[in-house]
Amino acid sequence: MAENKEDNVVYVGSKPVMNYVLAITTQLSRSNEVVLKSRGQAISRSVDAAEIVRNRFMPGVKVKSINISTEELAREDGTMMNVSAMEITLTK
Amino acid sequence: MAENKEDNVVYVGSKPVMNYVLAITTQLSRSNEVVLKSRGQAISRSVDAAEIVRNRFMPGVKVKSINISTEELAREDGTMMNVSAMEITLTK
Repeated sequence: MAENKEDNVVYVGSKPVMNYVLAITTQLSRSNEVVLKSRGQAISRSVDAAEIVRNRFMPGVKVKSINISTEELAREDGTMMNVSAMEITLTK
Repeated sequence: MAENKEDNVVYVGSKPVMNYVLAITTQLSRSNEVVLKSRGQAISRSVDAAEIVRNRFMPGVKVKSINISTEELAREDGTMMNVSAMEITLTK
């Protein structure tokens, strides 16, 4: 069950936005829900990806919830830094 | 009334994030609610600003709602482009 849930997650990083649009539409063709997770600068890209899916490819898709949080990450030198994180849940 | 409502808005752009943190905390010292509006790359910064206010300066502040949308903007040459937009509403 936990593994199935993890399958619904698309991690949005620094690749071109259309890569994530494709991953999201693929996921939504298989299930009713997908969670977009992003951190730092990629947060803007995850909003772009969600909006492109909704406006251009799957007009019925809705934003179920958006949550923001702060995560602690280790830098290469071992010190900690705070990074903003966002989760956008889309449903059919 | 409409003017009062507009006073509750902080537009997050390309300045250093602490500028917006200061604007948000000032606004929340005067009223119970503030709306952070951002577009494009500044969306990530608006999440940073909201998280810094909540975690470092005003621990009682909550995220009331987050909405995303797409806005049509004119480029310098007059053609139109789509830009993602986000509104984060914070309350005391």
